Amino acid sequence: MQIKKVFLSEAEMPRQWYNILADIKMNPPLGPDGQPVGPDDLAPVFPMNLIEQEVSPERWIDIPDEVLQVLNIWRPSPLIRALSLEKYLDTPARIYLKNEGVSPPGSHKPNTAVPQAYYNKIFGIEKITTETGAGQWGSALAFACSQFGIECKVFMVRVSFDQKPYRKSMMEAWGAKCIPSPSTETNAGRAALEKDPDTPGSLGISISEAIEAAVSDKTGKTRYSLGSVLNHVLLHQTIIGLEAKKQLEKIGEYPDVVIACAGGGSNFAGLAFPFVYDKINGKEIDIYPYEPAACPTMTKAPFVYDHGDTARYTPLLPMYSLGHAFVPPPIHAGGLRYHGMSPAVSQLVTEGIIEARSVTQLEAYKAGVAFAKTEGFISAPETNHAIAGVIEEAKKAKEEGKEKVILFNWSGHGLIDLAAYDKYFAGELYDFVLTDEEMLASEKVFQDHPKPQLLKSR
Amino acid sequence: MQIKKVFLSEAEMPRQWYNILADIKMNPPLGPDGQPVGPDDLAPVFPMNLIEQEVSPERWIDIPDEVLQVLNIWRPSPLIRALSLEKYLDTPARIYLKNEGVSPPGSHKPNTAVPQAYYNKIFGIEKITTETGAGQWGSALAFACSQFGIECKVFMVRVSFDQKPYRKSMMEAWGAKCIPSPSTETNAGRAALEKDPDTPGSLGISISEAIEAAVSDKTGKTRYSLGSVLNHVLLHQTIIGLEAKKQLEKIGEYPDVVIACAGGGSNFAGLAFPFVYDKINGKEIDIYPYEPAACPTMTKAPFVYDHGDTARYTPLLPMYSLGHAFVPPPIHAGGLRYHGMSPAVSQLVTEGIIEARSVTQLEAYKAGVAFAKTEGFISAPETNHAIAGVIEEAKKAKEEGKEKVILFNWSGHGLIDLAAYDKYFAGELYDFVLTDEEMLASEKVFQDHPKPQLLKSR
Repeated sequence: MQIKKVFLSEAEMPRQWYNILADIKMNPPLGPDGQPVGPDDLAPVFPMNLIEQEVSPERWIDIPDEVLQVLNIWRPSPLIRALSLEKYLDTPARIYLKNEGVSPPGSHKPNTAVPQAYYNKIFGIEKITTETGAGQWGSALAFACSQFGIECKVFMVRVSFDQKPYRKSMMEAWGAKCIPSPSTETNAGRAALEKDPDTPGSLGISISEAIEAAVSDKTGKTRYSLGSVLNHVLLHQTIIGLEAKKQLEKIGEYPDVVIACAGGGSNFAGLAFPFVYDKINGKEIDIYPYEPAACPTMTKAPFVYDHGDTARYTPLLPMYSLGHAFVPPPIHAGGLRYHGMSPAVSQLVTEGIIEARSVTQLEAYKAGVAFAKTEGFISAPETNHAIAGVIEEAKKAKEEGKEKVILFNWSGHGLIDLAAYDKYFAGELYDFVLTDEEMLASEKVFQDHPKPQLLKSR
Repeated sequence: MQIKKVFLSEAEMPRQWYNILADIKMNPPLGPDGQPVGPDDLAPVFPMNLIEQEVSPERWIDIPDEVLQVLNIWRPSPLIRALSLEKYLDTPARIYLKNEGVSPPGSHKPNTAVPQAYYNKIFGIEKITTETGAGQWGSALAFACSQFGIECKVFMVRVSFDQKPYRKSMMEAWGAKCIPSPSTETNAGRAALEKDPDTPGSLGISISEAIEAAVSDKTGKTRYSLGSVLNHVLLHQTIIGLEAKKQLEKIGEYPDVVIACAGGGSNFAGLAFPFVYDKINGKEIDIYPYEPAACPTMTKAPFVYDHGDTARYTPLLPMYSLGHAFVPPPIHAGGLRYHGMSPAVSQLVTEGIIEARSVTQLEAYKAGVAFAKTEGFISAPETNHAIAGVIEEAKKAKEEGKEKVILFNWSGHGLIDLAAYDKYFAGELYDFVLTDEEMLASEKVFQDHPKPQLLKSR
């Protein structure tokens, strides 16, 4: 019988995260005055130990034992060979996936939620606020906070709050509080409601609310937490790629192609950055983040300085952005409905080290259904975008008659997103592709922003 | 750091199932004439290769390679030490759980769905019918049938069909058809609807419908499949206990106590039977199936001959039963709402080799929430009954000041059952305990049935 899965023992789990800041050049975040933002400016929002990680130039950063002990609940995650999908596609490619769906909330998100909760805890923080779109991040942080005895409050984009009641239930099972956003609890929320009492909400508004709720707590014991985009978040996710590398090594494999979906960039970075490191050091390897055609940040939007949130509370970040006021079409991959892209991932795209691609919603679901019927697991809508990319590459390998090793990140299961599959089967899912007019309208927002420099890391 | 999980490699996965029929004596199933049922009587319902397994006296039965290749998708499943739960309970007990929630449908059910689909396939069967209560079994069979290219039709108890739309979506994602039961497609369904057009349905009615749909297909290419109760189903589940034994051996442990929840008996038998084998051969070990106080088959009902379904299509089985007409109270552990108990498990209880216990719904949820807040994973409502038992035993170990090894079956996750957790948190879940009057009313149904003999296996 052919080997299907590769496990690592807990003793083989990586003891350090890989920090890509040691290997690429990046434009600094800017404050409202156009000047680079320093650690102190961020202190009301994040605990200083995480701010230090955010700007650290060290290539390898130790994972604390207390964090490893919680990651142990589900890590190391299995590496699975998609033998049945290969057979179905009749491809000479060997397809491997990293199964990040085995965590308690069912996605890769707790890889950073756990260290974030830990660093807040040892910094003396008692409460964390955050936002969530589809709900993956909010439930991951709720889980992590319950492990370290921290209070957790989640502002959930209202349309998802209404569509996905199970996500709220999950957060509550772990003791967190989850409320629909915009809410009446913050200025940002009240302003949004005043503008449109029936607004479905957006990730940008929810981020504004969560930041405001953190910085306005007079006790100083509350901080904010973000589930993607920032350097320290991507850093924590690199455990995925570091494990995958060890697992592939055990069976004498190394990927020719690395694929993951990308919304804010964290699951992509988590798998890809350790391989980007190899590429920077001379390895030949193709690395593709896949984004939705409905929210084509990297494939269509400009590389600009923009805010991470709608109310413009965050510093200006150098990134691909559709504009902080952009409200993405209602595709069912909530985790990919973000107007920007992590600065680190954006930098790699700008430099041509990685190549962004997009797929439509229907292509993604079609791929997800093929995966479910071959490999068995039902994927998150976000993950389906990566699978569509894998199928594209596997077909290409067939056409070229080339043996190829494809590695991708199976970032989470879709068991709480099944309503969207229903719609797909009922023919009620549609493709949204951003028009040029929408792009132009969206870009106006950058006119008064500074422009990032084009940097070269190598 | 303390070891949290023990993995087995695929090469270490058991190659044979353990058949308890080699080690215990059992009363035969009886036909309507009161005579033992032979293999030929069952031929319209099950394929002959599974009927042969049902009555096989062989202690070890080979697992076909084609079955192993599919079980490989998620097996061997991790053995996890519940370090945080131990700490929370301040117990000297060491608690281990077998995580059966890592399968694509999220429970132990595919352990038998996969071989059942396989044996039907090689027997030339093209379509399988079944029933499902909570939905775990129906989705497991849908997954298994998709792996072997077999059509699958699931009669789902109507109240669950309405409450849990995600379960239907899962089955459809794997290409199966799922309809609410009672339906107008069968005599049994039409009779139930005539009696009460608004009936919530029951597992007993759904079983009748699925059997009728199978045997009435004139092509002869349709068979019925059951997810619990029968010998061959329990046989397939023993891979759980066989793996657990190997995993514990790797770290020099052996259980003093084995616990699982029990509805029809399959997840309990899967973990426990390999240890029952040891007990029969002299090992000291306490083995406890936990059932709900609302449906107390083993702890309150008589050991009788009764039908497995409401319409009395099945043979008379020797088992603990609340009566085939019994409709269990609406507790949120659908998988435990069955009037009977597997004959093999019943026999072990009758002989005193294992000892059945019960917990109330609220005790079960309380235990499940404690587990989620310590071990992270959110459990299926059924599984919560096992956790309540584990906590009871761990507290006893503390009182006695005894180091004890407790092993239990974490039979599935509760991510599709979160609505019930909501009700628990809202104080809207209630305890149901069967009264003596209800018991007496229920027992009348057995008056015309033969009585099973009291057999002794050792």
